[in-house]
Amino acid sequence: MKTTGYAALNAETPLAPYSFDRRELRSDDVAIEILYCGVCHSDLHQTRSDWPGTIYPCVPGHEIVGRVIEVGGDVTRHKVGDAVAVGCLVDSCGHCDQCLAHEEQMCREGVTLTYNGRDRITGDVTYGGYSKHVVVREEFVLSIPEGLDLARAAPLLCAGITTYSPLRTWHVGPGSRVGVIGLGGLGHMAVKLAAGLGADVTVISRSDAKTADALALGADRVLVSTDAEAMAAAANAFDLIIDTVPVRHDLRPYMPLLDIDATLVIVGQLGLVDEISTLPLLMGRRRISGSPVGGIAETQEMLNFCAKKNILPECEMIAIQEINGAFERMEKADVRYRFVIDMATLEGPAAA
Amino acid sequence: MKTTGYAALNAETPLAPYSFDRRELRSDDVAIEILYCGVCHSDLHQTRSDWPGTIYPCVPGHEIVGRVIEVGGDVTRHKVGDAVAVGCLVDSCGHCDQCLAHEEQMCREGVTLTYNGRDRITGDVTYGGYSKHVVVREEFVLSIPEGLDLARAAPLLCAGITTYSPLRTWHVGPGSRVGVIGLGGLGHMAVKLAAGLGADVTVISRSDAKTADALALGADRVLVSTDAEAMAAAANAFDLIIDTVPVRHDLRPYMPLLDIDATLVIVGQLGLVDEISTLPLLMGRRRISGSPVGGIAETQEMLNFCAKKNILPECEMIAIQEINGAFERMEKADVRYRFVIDMATLEGPAAA
Repeated sequence: MKTTGYAALNAETPLAPYSFDRRELRSDDVAIEILYCGVCHSDLHQTRSDWPGTIYPCVPGHEIVGRVIEVGGDVTRHKVGDAVAVGCLVDSCGHCDQCLAHEEQMCREGVTLTYNGRDRITGDVTYGGYSKHVVVREEFVLSIPEGLDLARAAPLLCAGITTYSPLRTWHVGPGSRVGVIGLGGLGHMAVKLAAGLGADVTVISRSDAKTADALALGADRVLVSTDAEAMAAAANAFDLIIDTVPVRHDLRPYMPLLDIDATLVIVGQLGLVDEISTLPLLMGRRRISGSPVGGIAETQEMLNFCAKKNILPECEMIAIQEINGAFERMEKADVRYRFVIDMATLEGPAAA
Repeated sequence: MKTTGYAALNAETPLAPYSFDRRELRSDDVAIEILYCGVCHSDLHQTRSDWPGTIYPCVPGHEIVGRVIEVGGDVTRHKVGDAVAVGCLVDSCGHCDQCLAHEEQMCREGVTLTYNGRDRITGDVTYGGYSKHVVVREEFVLSIPEGLDLARAAPLLCAGITTYSPLRTWHVGPGSRVGVIGLGGLGHMAVKLAAGLGADVTVISRSDAKTADALALGADRVLVSTDAEAMAAAANAFDLIIDTVPVRHDLRPYMPLLDIDATLVIVGQLGLVDEISTLPLLMGRRRISGSPVGGIAETQEMLNFCAKKNILPECEMIAIQEINGAFERMEKADVRYRFVIDMATLEGPAAA
């Protein structure tokens, strides 16, 4: 299937229009016309080779919402016309302990990523959602539940599930005391989802500049991390802290905020964090962990939960031709809170 | 009650004989004649003010084994002549969530430590087990089960429970894959206890110099951390790693050894460890934690378990007059694996 999109041809030049083929449908494949695609920090890191292993051309995008336009002969889960979604994963081995436990994101044989991955059958590079169409194995295609706004749903597929999954892993529910460090694409979803689960939510921020925003998103309060008195008063105040800070930082100020046996879970930074003190770990059996995206079943559960609770990301819609400017703004954290590409703009004149 | 012992009078001079009073028995107190006291690294750190807050004179020692010589009027748990033990804790508030959950070591109001603590009623400084007698509230006095060698049991009260507690917290049992980093006082007990619980035990060491010792203690194998090939082959090989290294170090080589959702628990170093990489945390939801000593009920459970399984520390018996030399050897890790003071030697001529 011929399609078109935007690709990075190398690490240095801006993303540019790119025509390519999607695979012909296998019997268990679904072909999707993409309507919207969220813009994730990963897209920027991968296309610019901030992360290793980028295969060029690279068509990024793993927050995909669209409609089914064709299905393979054995497909039973989806039919033509259905509103569907694709997240970070498009395939896995299906038989390891992790896949059998619906944790395909941690497949022992290595999950197939939506872009910059390798198709398990042909070995061809996978291309992501900055494009008009995508072809995906039906088990990795999510259903968009009735009532969920298609345009704003896209960021749920990465920012949503990345914050929903740890909330579920660490059993957050009514009465749980959740802290959220950082209020960007991931952080604002963590606030909405934790509040939706009934938790008492505190945004932990370096200043009170984001207080009004945090409260509007559903937080109960803001804890200013530079206020020594407030931080001391918040000792042992959290059952779970979700740390969405995407750069190297110091965890030490946050550890005493955890209650006994509580966890700080890192979802933002991929790389180093500063030296840590073992005292709060030993004295309160506190824990530091991390969490990737969730599996397919949990992602579907999250979409259903968001539809039921009317939880949607805050989005800034852009045309595909604006993607390079959006990357630049994202680098300066100048977005509230997620860019979403309206893929209808791909029909227009081919790029600036 | 008049008694005698060895105390640090300041941070610089050697421990020296010291006569002092133990409190008169309260109705719930037990008076113990101390037979043996283990020598813990903490004793050295506290008496030399490596750790803050030392109150001089300081009588260290929290691995205490002895016999009951007198009981208060309301005491029901112990009687004169019983073989008993006292560990790191001698009192707690008794009514907070942690005390009610039998986790007195994490008492919300602060647990009373066996030495260098403050009595909850009088505020007097607590003195430890490098002495002839001790008076302790009955709930904090452990029973030594029939058949447990009194001389060698002492180190169970700190080194034993510090390694037993994380094995229980993280549900180690038959088939669990446990790694132990470091083979000193704590590490050798971690090996014996994990093996006793039915786990498959690997000692992780910088060289194979300790292989024969590790196997003799009950380990199934040694993994040499400087052997890159062996380390790569051991990826995802552990459900729990107990890190007993007592100095600042780098956790990064060990994190990929953890399986998905598995934990590295620090029990040795109190202070900083090096910068950490978040990748193994995010990719496998791996965890870093710490663990203090256990509560009283868990300590009794551990003593009963050791009696049943005939698990005892490897000890080097010393006279109290040898304590300063023992400290020096301990600083050089020159002990297999724990010094125990034979308190009968306190009767002898008063110190070199």
